[in-house]
Amino acid sequence: MNARRRAQLPPELVFLPLGGTGEIGMNCYCYGSGPADERHWLMVDLGVKFGEETDPGIDVVLPDVGFISAEKSRLHGLVLTHAHEDHLGAVAWLWPQLECPVYCTPFAAQILALKLKEAGLDEQVPVKVMPVGSRFKLGPFELEFVSVTHSIPEPTALLIETPEGRVLHSGDWKIDRTPVLGQGMDEKRLREIGAKGVDVLICDSTNVLREGFSPSEADVAARIAAIVSQATGRVAVTTFASHLDRIATSIRAARACGREVVIAGRAMRNTIEAARACGMLNDSGRLLDEEEFGYLPPDKVMLLCTGSQGEPRAAIARIAEDQHPHVSLEEGDLVIFSSKTIPGNEKEVSRVLNNLAELDIDVITSEDDLVHSSGHPRQGELAMLYDWVKPKALIPMHGEPRHLRAHREFAHGKGIRDVLIPRDGHITRLAPGPLDHIDEAPCGRLHVDGKLIVPSEDGPAKQRRKLSYVGIVFVSLVITAKSELAADIELIADGLPMGLEDDLIEAAEKAFGSTPKPRRKDVNALAESIRTSVRRAADIAWGKKPIVKVSVTQL
Amino acid sequence: MNARRRAQLPPELVFLPLGGTGEIGMNCYCYGSGPADERHWLMVDLGVKFGEETDPGIDVVLPDVGFISAEKSRLHGLVLTHAHEDHLGAVAWLWPQLECPVYCTPFAAQILALKLKEAGLDEQVPVKVMPVGSRFKLGPFELEFVSVTHSIPEPTALLIETPEGRVLHSGDWKIDRTPVLGQGMDEKRLREIGAKGVDVLICDSTNVLREGFSPSEADVAARIAAIVSQATGRVAVTTFASHLDRIATSIRAARACGREVVIAGRAMRNTIEAARACGMLNDSGRLLDEEEFGYLPPDKVMLLCTGSQGEPRAAIARIAEDQHPHVSLEEGDLVIFSSKTIPGNEKEVSRVLNNLAELDIDVITSEDDLVHSSGHPRQGELAMLYDWVKPKALIPMHGEPRHLRAHREFAHGKGIRDVLIPRDGHITRLAPGPLDHIDEAPCGRLHVDGKLIVPSEDGPAKQRRKLSYVGIVFVSLVITAKSELAADIELIADGLPMGLEDDLIEAAEKAFGSTPKPRRKDVNALAESIRTSVRRAADIAWGKKPIVKVSVTQL
Repeated sequence: MNARRRAQLPPELVFLPLGGTGEIGMNCYCYGSGPADERHWLMVDLGVKFGEETDPGIDVVLPDVGFISAEKSRLHGLVLTHAHEDHLGAVAWLWPQLECPVYCTPFAAQILALKLKEAGLDEQVPVKVMPVGSRFKLGPFELEFVSVTHSIPEPTALLIETPEGRVLHSGDWKIDRTPVLGQGMDEKRLREIGAKGVDVLICDSTNVLREGFSPSEADVAARIAAIVSQATGRVAVTTFASHLDRIATSIRAARACGREVVIAGRAMRNTIEAARACGMLNDSGRLLDEEEFGYLPPDKVMLLCTGSQGEPRAAIARIAEDQHPHVSLEEGDLVIFSSKTIPGNEKEVSRVLNNLAELDIDVITSEDDLVHSSGHPRQGELAMLYDWVKPKALIPMHGEPRHLRAHREFAHGKGIRDVLIPRDGHITRLAPGPLDHIDEAPCGRLHVDGKLIVPSEDGPAKQRRKLSYVGIVFVSLVITAKSELAADIELIADGLPMGLEDDLIEAAEKAFGSTPKPRRKDVNALAESIRTSVRRAADIAWGKKPIVKVSVTQL
Repeated sequence: MNARRRAQLPPELVFLPLGGTGEIGMNCYCYGSGPADERHWLMVDLGVKFGEETDPGIDVVLPDVGFISAEKSRLHGLVLTHAHEDHLGAVAWLWPQLECPVYCTPFAAQILALKLKEAGLDEQVPVKVMPVGSRFKLGPFELEFVSVTHSIPEPTALLIETPEGRVLHSGDWKIDRTPVLGQGMDEKRLREIGAKGVDVLICDSTNVLREGFSPSEADVAARIAAIVSQATGRVAVTTFASHLDRIATSIRAARACGREVVIAGRAMRNTIEAARACGMLNDSGRLLDEEEFGYLPPDKVMLLCTGSQGEPRAAIARIAEDQHPHVSLEEGDLVIFSSKTIPGNEKEVSRVLNNLAELDIDVITSEDDLVHSSGHPRQGELAMLYDWVKPKALIPMHGEPRHLRAHREFAHGKGIRDVLIPRDGHITRLAPGPLDHIDEAPCGRLHVDGKLIVPSEDGPAKQRRKLSYVGIVFVSLVITAKSELAADIELIADGLPMGLEDDLIEAAEKAFGSTPKPRRKDVNALAESIRTSVRRAADIAWGKKPIVKVSVTQL
């Protein structure tokens, strides 16, 4: 492109999600500033999503950042709004493709450091620690971490100012006037930002279907304290490993009635260590190890543990199966699920609740009492933020399609007419306005399989899903130069019902007998004939067609 | 056992669940009468449970009735309380093990006949059709089908009288004073039964965690009629295929505003045909086929369809993906989910709701309006049935462990002190009382895999689950009589990331080179050495150890 043409392209501020639209998790958003042919880029958040049962053997899913990786000479940095896995968990996997500095608050930096160390990247990644409230400049992007409230320490919204416009990227937030820890929602600053004018609010939609206001962490703390004070046996509290407010609340409730606190679960220990390294949770006294649980009287102990989502290897699941090496609970003890069940985890949570019921252990969940409050804004809170920030336009983020659409309706109802719902890979012009879908970028998702990053489309998980339905049969033949069998046909099946082998070998032998003998080295037709015969025989005997692989060795 | 000893054993009435305790589905209960060494048996219900994702490739799970099959000379019959899959769906699979007459109401007989025909058993199984309210005798068992209300036509509770005692087996029920179809709850007869004395009530626990009374079908009908009357575009109603009340309600709502009714979904068509064969639903007029949907004006059509649980191949899922061959919906149309999401199906239902949102189709679910009511009793209904029947003892059935335990607490609170929760395989003495766990019988579950019945423990599903996590590698070697390679080592991998083959072949070659040459025909040590080397190489490169199968052919 020549200089004259280039000069004609107008500077604009654009938004490009590479993950996180229309699903929960895997947040990854890019902002571009400048003319279309030489945009300067900023990335906000780089999170994972957990694998689904439809992709067996895949625990972690990553956004494909190939597009921005190709532009990395003009990528000025990655900014993390907070330390949840779905906003930060992919950094250690994908940073080698980006090689840019990473900006985050002290708590997020602690959590990230652990992950980078595990990945052997701690010496390489330049992590810039910015306190909540900081302003800093990356290329054309003037940025500010604005304090909000959420379910993890140091949650921030990100103010993004470029020559073309001003955007408030909400991150994950709620309005909690009485948080247990932290600086709280910076209403004053948000109102100032609103007074100066906000072109676009990119906004959390998770709880848009719920009316009213979320209960405060202080309300939850009061209920948990009351419940613990009335308990006569052992008390276990399970919550999200990163939910430091809830951890602090539980510890205070325990201390108030003279209970020691035992921590179970590595992720929760990591949270507590990261918090203490940042000067938080220093009033919580000595926290005990699992090994000490059994030595304490029932009314003098609280267990704080992981597993609120029914994770089968987490502490509470193992306790519920009476399989935990150090902790056991019995009739008269109480487990508080200080959490909500994330959609998709219902069966796993239900299994734990049922196992606890079989042990006659009492359980209180957020369906029974106010022992949890979400970290995302309900309608009342959304309306309040709109009022403070007064955005000209809105992009609903963080939610499934029905949440994004409901958020659009809600914003329309509140007088925000310019609302657009982009998908991953859509490039939206934010300013100069109105919102406009102007281009597309390649995007997608990657699977973490073992320690490798593999394709999600037509990758190994898809092959394994097929294996999981129909199993596999391996047939090997050795034939002479004259194309006669040099040994018996060998057949190995895996994942098929017992007793089918004879039928399948017979089918292979018949196919061998009835297929024209291969010319030297051209065994493909023979292999294919055997493959289809064995599949057909399986279908007749079993009603399913397994994967069949045939190996023909010609001597 | 000699005659003298036999004479000493007292006659008793016992209860033996072979499926259905502590989980939803797979109901199968046996009652025994007489002395322990020559019990006469009756089976009540024989249902399936749907397969879970942890058992890939398994759609249907059956109770193992091996114990009662061995006693079939004294099995007097199988009685079905109603036609739901979890009470009747296993008959066509397991009847060949039982070979006893089957007793059920006319509607259940229609549904069963379809299944028996598909299984080629329709000529063999003696099905005895008994109207609701019938009394009949099977060996020592005097039985009566008592009319109750539920979410399918002709639901019954079963009164079981033997010389030893009287039991009311509730089946699935609720108290609906204004059902849309059917005879309704026979309160008068239940009170009479109570007045005569009931030793044990075996009772539905599904909704024991819910206070108050279930809304009536008539309340749901009124809301659906109101919603449909206000709709301006196309309306689709999705509900359980067997829920004839809801089908009738939807058809009436459509007729009231001049809408034609199109049926989509084979299972729903079967329900309607079965109902009409029993003289029900005859006022519903002509129901149209899917092909006719597209020719009708939007405000003159209602689609009644399957898929309320998010089943990916059902009508509403395909419509939501805009992939249905005959039906498409668009902005301004309305879908009513006249159902609740059965635990475990949340993700699938959510996917359908999101796809509909992406098409800007309005959706009303039971979370938004009274478009569904459960067919199971809440606390108020349970208390009412206790009051009518006045059982001396209670066995909570139909529910997960936490429901069964909550039901025990609830019954205690209502003054029923003798409550026992048996597990599958427990033999409980019901009379003479009190309830007592006296013995155990073998029990378990079976998988339907393709068209075969296979073991659930260590069966093919377990092998396939393993395959689905780690994939499989086949290695085949051909060696000469002198144990030298006669051809290159062949390696086929399935379900592994690309690019590992070279490492794995190299590992196999090294293992071959370093393993002592096998003596004639003893190739096991060589195969094992190659297997472990290939697994280790995969673990190093990938971080996972695949299943490795090695075939060594010695010429």
